[in-house]
Amino acid sequence: MEKITSTQNAKVKKWQHLTTKKGHHKFHQYLVEGWHTVGDAIAAEQPVVQVAATPEQLDEHAQDIPDDVERFEITDEIAKKLSDTVTPQGIFAVIDILAAEHVDPDEATGAWLLLDRIQDPGNIGTMVRTADAAGFSGVVFGNGTSSRYTPKVIRAMQGSQFHIRLSEDDLGNWVSAFEARQIPVYGSALDKDAQNYQTVEPQPAFGLIMGNEGQGMSERLMSQTTTNLYIPIKGQAESLNVAVAAGILMFKLNQNLV
Amino acid sequence: MEKITSTQNAKVKKWQHLTTKKGHHKFHQYLVEGWHTVGDAIAAEQPVVQVAATPEQLDEHAQDIPDDVERFEITDEIAKKLSDTVTPQGIFAVIDILAAEHVDPDEATGAWLLLDRIQDPGNIGTMVRTADAAGFSGVVFGNGTSSRYTPKVIRAMQGSQFHIRLSEDDLGNWVSAFEARQIPVYGSALDKDAQNYQTVEPQPAFGLIMGNEGQGMSERLMSQTTTNLYIPIKGQAESLNVAVAAGILMFKLNQNLV
Repeated sequence: MEKITSTQNAKVKKWQHLTTKKGHHKFHQYLVEGWHTVGDAIAAEQPVVQVAATPEQLDEHAQDIPDDVERFEITDEIAKKLSDTVTPQGIFAVIDILAAEHVDPDEATGAWLLLDRIQDPGNIGTMVRTADAAGFSGVVFGNGTSSRYTPKVIRAMQGSQFHIRLSEDDLGNWVSAFEARQIPVYGSALDKDAQNYQTVEPQPAFGLIMGNEGQGMSERLMSQTTTNLYIPIKGQAESLNVAVAAGILMFKLNQNLV
Repeated sequence: MEKITSTQNAKVKKWQHLTTKKGHHKFHQYLVEGWHTVGDAIAAEQPVVQVAATPEQLDEHAQDIPDDVERFEITDEIAKKLSDTVTPQGIFAVIDILAAEHVDPDEATGAWLLLDRIQDPGNIGTMVRTADAAGFSGVVFGNGTSSRYTPKVIRAMQGSQFHIRLSEDDLGNWVSAFEARQIPVYGSALDKDAQNYQTVEPQPAFGLIMGNEGQGMSERLMSQTTTNLYIPIKGQAESLNVAVAAGILMFKLNQNLV
């Protein structure tokens, strides 16, 4: 096993690069951090190709890392450099990004969360985690939604990316495909002319679109949905956080499943 | 009006200090940022004592700042130093922390959210914002819950701290007072022996306790509640983000009010 001691080592620089969008495009790989996520990725049979860890972390987890995964011993200083957190655990994995992860909306079953230009990594990750908990089949990242391979998104997903399906697509394709199959697609609106979410009967299969934090859903998508839903707000708050709103809608719409 | 141009100026140092817990204790004041929050504080007749802003921001908002508020002109460089964001708007206000904000649980009416050792500033702020939107009367910050006067909490509250009542207290006092008044107090649990939240009838007055992100509610409080609720989880997710769980529970329990 190779021991790396310099933060200037070329592998360290590449791993750092794998926490950025540019790095993901260049290498078709991404970096995850912490045993919670690394172990989840291995358990979910993700294409983990390398593990880099401090001696303590290697000792602790060696028997859980498959034999075909390349291992590197790193220093605490390198762990700090690679980490997105203040107190890094000291274990990282490089995972291949597979082109085959694309989901065909003509064949998708169950409930799907569709993200329209969501920006905040914490919101995105939390929505994936909530979709998993609400029994959704998957989440589609629409054009303009932040990458699912950045450290903050990965941390907020808490391993749920390995439990449900994730895809990237033009949401227009999903709306058209679902409507052709007579599966409802719900938009979300702040508009009181939209339908109160409490009046919708839970469905076995549907799409739910959540829109950008500041601007909401695009007008174009809004006009294509089966119906648009709103959550009645009682106090003086102007709106809900998008991940909270998504949670309320997902647990209501999929209520018969949980 | 005093113009301040040095980032080493004593006032700038004090304002910076007012973004920390130590500063809040020493001066009984806190700093807020951005016109959204500064304007909300003025509209809510909060004790705003000073405004510091760049010339552009002072020009834009001068007529909305009351005459008895002391004004300071600052540079972009100082704004950057005071700001918690990457691109500061350039307007800040110093607000007094009033001792009189304490709420007596023997006199509290309506629905109250009780926070038991919640750590993450974003979660805390989002829960206050959601409590406002769900028509709650207020939020009680229990012992061990992060301060409500730090920049990240203030940003996530989005002005809702000026719409509903906030208090700090030992949550044991609230549980005892509500039970003596026969007002239900609901705990939240991951435990499937707890009651499914969907089976609870909405109430006009109640307390809802949300617990620490990692450890959940304290055992002591859990044993004192009227009943403990859980949200059934369908997928492989281990739990929900605490702010999402709080949103689902608040909108269900207070359903008759919205």
